[in-house]
Amino acid sequence: MLDRMSDAALPPDRPDDHRHRRRAILETAARLICEKGYEGTSIQDIAAACQLTKAGLYHHIRSKEHLLLEIMNYGMDLFEDQVVTPVLPILDPLERLYSCMERNLMLVTEERSKEITIILHEHATLTGEARAQINARKKRYVRFLEGSFAEAVRAGRLRPLHPKVAAFAFLGMVLWIYKWFKPDGAIKEDELVRVMQQLFFGGLERGDAAPAARRPRAKPPANSP
Amino acid sequence: MLDRMSDAALPPDRPDDHRHRRRAILETAARLICEKGYEGTSIQDIAAACQLTKAGLYHHIRSKEHLLLEIMNYGMDLFEDQVVTPVLPILDPLERLYSCMERNLMLVTEERSKEITIILHEHATLTGEARAQINARKKRYVRFLEGSFAEAVRAGRLRPLHPKVAAFAFLGMVLWIYKWFKPDGAIKEDELVRVMQQLFFGGLERGDAAPAARRPRAKPPANSP
Repeated sequence: MLDRMSDAALPPDRPDDHRHRRRAILETAARLICEKGYEGTSIQDIAAACQLTKAGLYHHIRSKEHLLLEIMNYGMDLFEDQVVTPVLPILDPLERLYSCMERNLMLVTEERSKEITIILHEHATLTGEARAQINARKKRYVRFLEGSFAEAVRAGRLRPLHPKVAAFAFLGMVLWIYKWFKPDGAIKEDELVRVMQQLFFGGLERGDAAPAARRPRAKPPANSP
Repeated sequence: MLDRMSDAALPPDRPDDHRHRRRAILETAARLICEKGYEGTSIQDIAAACQLTKAGLYHHIRSKEHLLLEIMNYGMDLFEDQVVTPVLPILDPLERLYSCMERNLMLVTEERSKEITIILHEHATLTGEARAQINARKKRYVRFLEGSFAEAVRAGRLRPLHPKVAAFAFLGMVLWIYKWFKPDGAIKEDELVRVMQQLFFGGLERGDAAPAARRPRAKPPANSP
């Protein structure tokens, strides 16, 4: 579905130029859509921001909805290339999850792909087959996380847990970062990685008290301390 | 800012009717904006969905942007009334955080206010003073969480942590739920509360191994197991 651009009547660029130009268009369009909303962004706006004529832009894209699909597929490509594929060979499931968190977090804090991440996770404007395609790619990542959590429990590396809730808790913690993290703020990326890993895997409660005594239940009784 | 509707030339409803009608308009508008995007939703669409004429709707709202601000303020009202205010009197900071997580989670899983939550957290279409107003209300909640985490550490109820990262990790885990939770799915709300509380506060790693030996660092050396 994404190879459409290679069919277009492009000048005889080198493949690297072609890839570079495609990325630039997708990143520019993503920035505009984040600023002005999908409905509020016209093809004309995107062409102007890319320093192309409208006809020139249509060499590269099929339609506005297809452009949105391409942005989301590009986001999933980045994600799979930078987060999932490199951790697949890690045999120890807990070490795999630690590495996965680090890589996912680094991708989310990266300024250049920030708008791509936002569009991937916030804009439900896709419909039909395009929507199903992106949802299937997201679901594969959730399944991978669930599988790694379950494997880590079986290997005695994590305590018994609900793999699906753990996977979504992991994702929520990590992906929410694009909403608050500022690259020039007090917390740097590498500190954030370390703190988040410890927080998520190590837990917050002090290990020196008896869990039953210090952990209130979901609904503490009225006379609880 | 939200008392605008009491100035309008409304029929002499009882105050409860008025509040009920206002909520219905905000919830209906939120549902449409989630479906079609803010730019893609017209005042005419909202009026029709509310079974009002356009003029009738304008008795209740000032403008489309102001309606968006009202939706977000309504979301923050719900949030403060149902999550923050009830936990403020809880003296023990850890018990306060447990209760806060439960209440926040219940609000997020509630079907009726789901679109309100989405708009509050995903749509950055507000500008200027309106945007600053909502951001200030959100920031107060983050500060409250940060303060409770810091207090729980001082009281020896939690191990030393980074209060800001802990606050946003808490928020990310809890708010991400609206993206995946289905009320008719296998996990029920009360189980979700229990699992998330244990996961976040209790941590995942087994307590019976020596942390240094089993916990890979952010960047494991090349020869790590």
